[in-house]
Amino acid sequence: MTTSTTPPTEHRSDEDSHHHPPGYLGDKAKVLARLRRVEGQVRGLQRMVDEDTYCIDVLTQVSAATKALENVALLLLDDHVRHCVADDVRSGSTEKVDEAMQAITRLVKS
Amino acid sequence: MTTSTTPPTEHRSDEDSHHHPPGYLGDKAKVLARLRRVEGQVRGLQRMVDEDTYCIDVLTQVSAATKALENVALLLLDDHVRHCVADDVRSGSTEKVDEAMQAITRLVKS
Amino acid sequence: MTTSTTPPTEHRSDEDSHHHPPGYLGDKAKVLARLRRVEGQVRGLQRMVDEDTYCIDVLTQVSAATKALENVALLLLDDHVRHCVADDVRSGSTEKVDEAMQAITRLVKS
Amino acid sequence: MTTSTTPPTEHRSDEDSHHHPPGYLGDKAKVLARLRRVEGQVRGLQRMVDEDTYCIDVLTQVSAATKALENVALLLLDDHVRHCVADDVRSGSTEKVDEAMQAITRLVKS
Repeated sequence: MTTSTTPPTEHRSDEDSHHHPPGYLGDKAKVLARLRRVEGQVRGLQRMVDEDTYCIDVLTQVSAATKALENVALLLLDDHVRHCVADDVRSGSTEKVDEAMQAITRLVKS
Repeated sequence: MTTSTTPPTEHRSDEDSHHHPPGYLGDKAKVLARLRRVEGQVRGLQRMVDEDTYCIDVLTQVSAATKALENVALLLLDDHVRHCVADDVRSGSTEKVDEAMQAITRLVKS
Repeated sequence: MTTSTTPPTEHRSDEDSHHHPPGYLGDKAKVLARLRRVEGQVRGLQRMVDEDTYCIDVLTQVSAATKALENVALLLLDDHVRHCVADDVRSGSTEKVDEAMQAITRLVKS
Repeated sequence: MTTSTTPPTEHRSDEDSHHHPPGYLGDKAKVLARLRRVEGQVRGLQRMVDEDTYCIDVLTQVSAATKALENVALLLLDDHVRHCVADDVRSGSTEKVDEAMQAITRLVKS
């Protein structure tokens, strides 16, 4: 799964080890559906603000959207650890563990 | 600002005390601009996932969008406390303090 | 409650407006009891680590202690807003609102 | 490190796979030192409350202690993933990945 024969995929990181399908490949439809729902929530928020909805009602919806995004992050992280990090560890590396711990720290601190 | 002569506004809560402009009225353009930017971030996330972007790069963007939403919440809360809660306290009530503390608890725990 | 006839109290901030009983005065026994319980949890954690307790069991207890501290913060904040901030607002000031919003931001972001 | 010849250690979980040194073994002195410092912070908080310290100053210290505990959690988690989870993955299991993801979820949501 980490060989260079996998088809080229879009990505930003330039390390060779990233040239393989993302960990969320099997959950892609689910991740996209959740992100579309979050987009709908954020558009709903704009409508609420535009219509002078009471502050607390807007805040409740912001909390709901934030929680939904947090759950997307946890799903992506689960897939990443289960696939990319596990593959990397099995191949004898600890590079992806370092990287994953940084992402987890960002999530916990945000 | 809390008189009953203010024009009727859209809101969900049905209490009479809510029939006045929301606390974020003076920041409406700013709140809307921030929400539009979050919407752009969430659409960007869908594009990233659609293009199989590396998990960690997606996660970094999810963290950025979450942080942006959190900042919208803090701006709304600031306006709410400064206007609606302060007006309510001055009028001798503590009802809005109770309600604001519940919203703050949701924010801190999310 | 905000008169200058209240007995001098220990405090770190040097502004005159602080020379009055803290907002948590009525909840002092409750706050102290909760802090003693958190202290017990943190000592229990040291025992667990000293005895090589399994990582996940230690982590579960760290989460419990963190949540307990968060609840102490929410109780202190509730009392502060309800007493100190409300008194200040009634006296025509917004200084304590600014200060409280900074504390809330720290809590939400931590 | 995961062989069954390691000396029996104190732990709460009863699964056989846990009968090996905890992931934080190499960081034990560091973890204990940090926990002792948190204990000191919590005792300091009791003193502050006992002396009627101004609410905001107490809240600032509660935030500092909470952040310190969060950092202990991240250190324990880092060691756990790097040692226990990695060993488990190398041995062909995913059991510890499931368990670690639950702990991470608790941390992110708290």
